[in-house]
Amino acid sequence: VDTHHRRFQDDLDQLKGRLLEMGGLAEERLLSVIRALVGRDTEGLARVASGDEPLNALHREIDDRAFKLLALQQPLAADLRTIVAAVKINTDIERIGDLAVNIAEASSRYLTHPPVKDLVDIPLMGDLAQKMVQDALDAFVRGDQDLARDVLNRDDQLDGLKSRVFRDLLGLMLTDQAKVKPSLDLILISRHLERIGDHATNIAEDVIFMVSALDVRHTGAP
Amino acid sequence: VDTHHRRFQDDLDQLKGRLLEMGGLAEERLLSVIRALVGRDTEGLARVASGDEPLNALHREIDDRAFKLLALQQPLAADLRTIVAAVKINTDIERIGDLAVNIAEASSRYLTHPPVKDLVDIPLMGDLAQKMVQDALDAFVRGDQDLARDVLNRDDQLDGLKSRVFRDLLGLMLTDQAKVKPSLDLILISRHLERIGDHATNIAEDVIFMVSALDVRHTGAP
Repeated sequence: VDTHHRRFQDDLDQLKGRLLEMGGLAEERLLSVIRALVGRDTEGLARVASGDEPLNALHREIDDRAFKLLALQQPLAADLRTIVAAVKINTDIERIGDLAVNIAEASSRYLTHPPVKDLVDIPLMGDLAQKMVQDALDAFVRGDQDLARDVLNRDDQLDGLKSRVFRDLLGLMLTDQAKVKPSLDLILISRHLERIGDHATNIAEDVIFMVSALDVRHTGAP
Repeated sequence: VDTHHRRFQDDLDQLKGRLLEMGGLAEERLLSVIRALVGRDTEGLARVASGDEPLNALHREIDDRAFKLLALQQPLAADLRTIVAAVKINTDIERIGDLAVNIAEASSRYLTHPPVKDLVDIPLMGDLAQKMVQDALDAFVRGDQDLARDVLNRDDQLDGLKSRVFRDLLGLMLTDQAKVKPSLDLILISRHLERIGDHATNIAEDVIFMVSALDVRHTGAP
């Protein structure tokens, strides 16, 4: 039984490790796409747009590992909560990768126009979203509820920046018709970044459930 | 053992039933919000915007049922795949409910302006998305792979409509400055509808995995 248990813990640690690796890859793609947008680097954008396959392969692998752990080991209580959380977190990270692709596509369209403004808030949103994803995943691996709650609290900052981006760009669109189309793409980019923050929030909620078996979703009180 | 097995099947059937009920609620909210937008019914929009709690309660309940089935019954193979699919589908339906709220909020802002155009493609998108969700859930309950694949194939129609909505509204924004702000909200609404279609697609993929134990995600070939 002891050997069996150790084997199970090894498999579970591997699952967590792969999930962390996948998260790192998603964060890297997020930072790359914003860097390429700000640096007007069309090749960098093309690399992000076409580079989703490693993340998708990890997504399949992690689902498979989680499913095998559920099927073969029949884990209970805390371990079961961890594996179910891993399945959900896996989906969130995969969507973050998809959103990096969406940002790359909107950025490529944006770069076909002259700049409408210096980009300040959008890179801020990118940094904030990346840090939220990183901390949510750290909270998962360490089982750190406090860090997870801290991630939940940061979602408002991202929402505030998104609203400011919208107001600024609407102002530009109303004063200069040539800025309508490129501004639309910047607005879409800010929405994609907001959604990445939402996925970090989902991960943080799953961590809190995993650690405390307490469902904090939909309570409005992090 | 037979009684135990029947009890398990009853619990699993109840889980599916509740999921179907939740899906019906989400579809109803989607249809209501589009009807209220088209009919310029601000009270109807406010009802959708504030009416997410029953869906959230079902979300918690279904997660709880799925978790108990996993923990107490230690199901194997096909049943395990069904329960894991249910957990994922539960998340997708909850997000569809959130998107109905987002649509209600954007619609309320839209209605503070005079109409920018007759709304034709957006209600079409709403109907298409609702039917995709409905069929994806029917495919889940019946274990119908063909219907699930059919849902996957309809995602392109929704994408096509979204692009047409964008082109039309961009044209209006460029010719009439007063239409910039309300048109932006219609564009956001069309994006929210597209995302509802994405969630229906996710559900359909989970159904195919459940039935065939074949992972069709990320293959590009439905």
